[in-house]
Amino acid sequence: MSDRLTALRRIMAEKNLSAYIQPGSDAHQSEYVGDYWRTRHWLSGFTGSNGIVVVTEKEAGLWTDGRYFIQAEKELAGSGIKLFKMDEPGVPAYSQWLADNLPIGAKIGFDGRVVSISEFRALKDILSGKEISYHYIEDIVGSLWEDRPAFPAAPAFIHDLAFAGKSSVVKLSEVRKKMQEEGADLYLAAALDDIAWLCNIRGSDITNTPVVFAYLLVSMESAYLFIDENKVSAALTAHLEEITICPYGAVYDYVREKADSSTLLYHAEGISVSLFDAVPGTAKAVNTSSIIQELKAVKNETEINNARNAFTKEGVVMVKFLKWLAQLKGDMPNETDVQAEISRLRRAQAHCLGDSFTTIAAYGKNASSPHYSPKAEDCSRLKPEGLMLVDTGGQYLDGTTDITRTFVMGPISDEMKRDFTLVLKGHIALAQAKFLKGATGAHLDVLARQYLWKAGMDYKHGTGHGLGYCLGVHEGPQNISMRINPNKLLPGMFCTNEPGIYKEGRHGIRSENVMLIKELETTEFGVFLGFEPLTLCPFDTRAVDRDLLTKSEIDYLNGYHCQVYEKLTPFLDKAEREWLKEATKAM
Amino acid sequence: MSDRLTALRRIMAEKNLSAYIQPGSDAHQSEYVGDYWRTRHWLSGFTGSNGIVVVTEKEAGLWTDGRYFIQAEKELAGSGIKLFKMDEPGVPAYSQWLADNLPIGAKIGFDGRVVSISEFRALKDILSGKEISYHYIEDIVGSLWEDRPAFPAAPAFIHDLAFAGKSSVVKLSEVRKKMQEEGADLYLAAALDDIAWLCNIRGSDITNTPVVFAYLLVSMESAYLFIDENKVSAALTAHLEEITICPYGAVYDYVREKADSSTLLYHAEGISVSLFDAVPGTAKAVNTSSIIQELKAVKNETEINNARNAFTKEGVVMVKFLKWLAQLKGDMPNETDVQAEISRLRRAQAHCLGDSFTTIAAYGKNASSPHYSPKAEDCSRLKPEGLMLVDTGGQYLDGTTDITRTFVMGPISDEMKRDFTLVLKGHIALAQAKFLKGATGAHLDVLARQYLWKAGMDYKHGTGHGLGYCLGVHEGPQNISMRINPNKLLPGMFCTNEPGIYKEGRHGIRSENVMLIKELETTEFGVFLGFEPLTLCPFDTRAVDRDLLTKSEIDYLNGYHCQVYEKLTPFLDKAEREWLKEATKAM
Repeated sequence: MSDRLTALRRIMAEKNLSAYIQPGSDAHQSEYVGDYWRTRHWLSGFTGSNGIVVVTEKEAGLWTDGRYFIQAEKELAGSGIKLFKMDEPGVPAYSQWLADNLPIGAKIGFDGRVVSISEFRALKDILSGKEISYHYIEDIVGSLWEDRPAFPAAPAFIHDLAFAGKSSVVKLSEVRKKMQEEGADLYLAAALDDIAWLCNIRGSDITNTPVVFAYLLVSMESAYLFIDENKVSAALTAHLEEITICPYGAVYDYVREKADSSTLLYHAEGISVSLFDAVPGTAKAVNTSSIIQELKAVKNETEINNARNAFTKEGVVMVKFLKWLAQLKGDMPNETDVQAEISRLRRAQAHCLGDSFTTIAAYGKNASSPHYSPKAEDCSRLKPEGLMLVDTGGQYLDGTTDITRTFVMGPISDEMKRDFTLVLKGHIALAQAKFLKGATGAHLDVLARQYLWKAGMDYKHGTGHGLGYCLGVHEGPQNISMRINPNKLLPGMFCTNEPGIYKEGRHGIRSENVMLIKELETTEFGVFLGFEPLTLCPFDTRAVDRDLLTKSEIDYLNGYHCQVYEKLTPFLDKAEREWLKEATKAM
Repeated sequence: MSDRLTALRRIMAEKNLSAYIQPGSDAHQSEYVGDYWRTRHWLSGFTGSNGIVVVTEKEAGLWTDGRYFIQAEKELAGSGIKLFKMDEPGVPAYSQWLADNLPIGAKIGFDGRVVSISEFRALKDILSGKEISYHYIEDIVGSLWEDRPAFPAAPAFIHDLAFAGKSSVVKLSEVRKKMQEEGADLYLAAALDDIAWLCNIRGSDITNTPVVFAYLLVSMESAYLFIDENKVSAALTAHLEEITICPYGAVYDYVREKADSSTLLYHAEGISVSLFDAVPGTAKAVNTSSIIQELKAVKNETEINNARNAFTKEGVVMVKFLKWLAQLKGDMPNETDVQAEISRLRRAQAHCLGDSFTTIAAYGKNASSPHYSPKAEDCSRLKPEGLMLVDTGGQYLDGTTDITRTFVMGPISDEMKRDFTLVLKGHIALAQAKFLKGATGAHLDVLARQYLWKAGMDYKHGTGHGLGYCLGVHEGPQNISMRINPNKLLPGMFCTNEPGIYKEGRHGIRSENVMLIKELETTEFGVFLGFEPLTLCPFDTRAVDRDLLTKSEIDYLNGYHCQVYEKLTPFLDKAEREWLKEATKAM
């Protein structure tokens, strides 16, 4: 790692760069990226999904969030890169750190494809007055990477109307309606999941997220999909109906030409610095919320009904896995065996495309790193004691799933039991919430945290995220978090509910269901919404301290377990049914 | 009223104004204003503290918030002015309404002194593209008001260090430290409570808020207080130490001169359009949060200790009042008699300056208007049945208080009892909250609303507001509300806790205590804060449905009542003590 840093610094010196910034994103600002784009990982060794490396002549730092603090400490060891814990007291943001450390007139380099125009503007704002210049026309870290993987080239495929529920023609008309409301002629999209949703296509360009590299430009009369033409079959071309296919790299020229003297809507968080450079000075470029993201976040009836099937299949996978786990004797598997077993069971289900992210199978103290990822050469073997945390999910043509359960492997401490119960109380409080339409996730987040806070504990991640439909396992605009997000929770949205507790060197606990937001009632005071759990899998009641639960919480748990049993039994064999009967018996 | 509207429209026609905007504020953007400034009230009849009237050739509207919907309907009756309910679905903001209704090239008039520069910028932004011109150099409504009251001229007085706890010299140095951090030469303040706090002076220019009309301009070396010199005694001049006294009207010239080529900090929500016009083009004007407001929100130890005394005195006032109420026989008083009795009892307390706002004494269905204000000629007489809501507060040299209680006057319905209990549950949930430092009021608001939401109910106002110290009864920057406010809740701040429920034509319930924010503990997960109630007065347990309370809620209530009894008895006579003993007995 430190050789790579040295090589980078050599080129920085040649080009007179005082700092180089390397985010972990791709040209579409994706959260998870394909191997080709793992430049930050290659440079630093850090594998988390959120992190940015900043290198100066003498110093190098990685900024990441609370989910990755423990993991980052390990992965950065010996790299010469220092960990900066985002949002912790006294820790400057990387942009502020640059403002504090760079001399007047410094030059900063980065790959303009992997930094969004919104991020760049914020950076320039903080560095204003320091006469900084920016060099972003080349991927310097990428140029040093000798055995860099090839750019992904897998074919795209049709997401059938029976799964999608709405044609791309209808979706285009919805986008154009929003464009009209904003007085715009053009809408430019770069987010891969937005484009896949609008076109009703899927692909395999990113591991675990069924998207294909593409850009989309929508005018009131036409729509252009910029995509490697080798990925598009004749059937797909026909399926795309009103959408014209253009070469992937042609997006820059099209934007330059079509946006001339037009009003162009774009979402500054999704458009790269390089792509925004193609917008001509004659265009009126209007930064807007992501129109497609907002449309796709509210699932249609077909999607909701199909997703219930996907979550049932996932429930079956989990029951089969848990029964396997319960019956283990003698030689115990290790964490990567657990990952493999879940993937194997999942792939046997109908319409399954694979995992929706790398399964977190974290035994014992490994779970204290919220996003721990076991490595074949360095992972723990399960033992008949303590807790194991499993966070896993699947991609199906009829939905995307995400679940976390923490299981009892054998004797557990009173502290573990109390922590498990406090996390569960928070999970139930949020699941049972009824709230006024207009509320955002930041308004509800405290419901999941309140019992942990009472005990002087907290988890350094959000409580819930939106979820795609045969798309990204994380999807906006809504979420449930202490971070202020103005996007309201609306009926038809999916959101996870996943409080946790993490004690370094001891244990980690998280309980996660995906919830559907539904309308509950309308009174003289307004419209009230609530949640329905889509995830079907028992919570491990052996880890529950019943004395800490209220009657209402026990009722919720028993009612949920009843549902899990009823909905899953038709798909289970006799032994599995018996196991589930026991696992879901009333407390 | 409609004659006044006609007169205004005549002048609008003469001056070619398509619309005239009349907010309810004064030249200092005060929430409550002196009689001289009640132009919006004079024009519309609406007496609430938040509301804006917009008049066009054919239409006229008043925009106000949920606290005032019922009251505004009544007060606007026959005025020709239509009520627009702010933040209700489908109701445009007044600026959007203007954008929808005004022709291209229209001219809008308003008094530039009573509109903040931030409000004006937001208006211009929404109306951009419509080629609107603005005419704000005269107070047209004021010019029509023949018997307009005189501009306030009461003397200012010293707020002694024994009450203030910190000298103006020290406070000035704190302001300058912030200025230095922002790289500024000058800070301009117009908010009357900020200025009173910084200078340790008080006044009587606004009913119920002990402030004096003034502006303040702080440089790194000097500080200028712009104030009517007739209000300033020699002793006060000496007390002001490093602060130079200048004529009130000289602020415009001073700003013009001193700000030349300087970096000037100002708070756009507090500076009027007229005053901002005085900032020269050569100045770098930087819109910042209100530095003084943030400093004064965190109370010092002297203020906190003194405030405990003020809240004890208020508790004594309430006990005496409640005992009086309980002993009434035969002819019952009316609502204004209740107001008078509370004021009378309050004025007998040490260091009392009077009420901190007009007492809301709302019997029966009158309480369904959250900010009901009884009028001598039109108010209800109390009866031995139903509920009465009293929201009252006092100004003391050692603090500002605010309390709401809802009392049982006789038989009450099961619905009233249930509603009272659900409100109380929310109040207790917030009062018992323990939360991570960094949380804002928007994060905690749901705790107070959750039980009402479960029952399909809501209250259309915030849950809590900050509170001054011998200053405004409402004070920022913190609050507890669904409205997003980035200001964190910090140790030393005061905040009210006042959920309610309002059913038009039936009843209204609110339970309010002022709370001190305190540090509770620091763990490996962060710093945790909580609340201590400063208000000392029993809740009427006769309205509580005990079956709806949890053990923890009952424990809280009993513990609070114990404290109330212990802290107030030293100041009560035997009969009062006996009454309080009964009122605070364990449930």
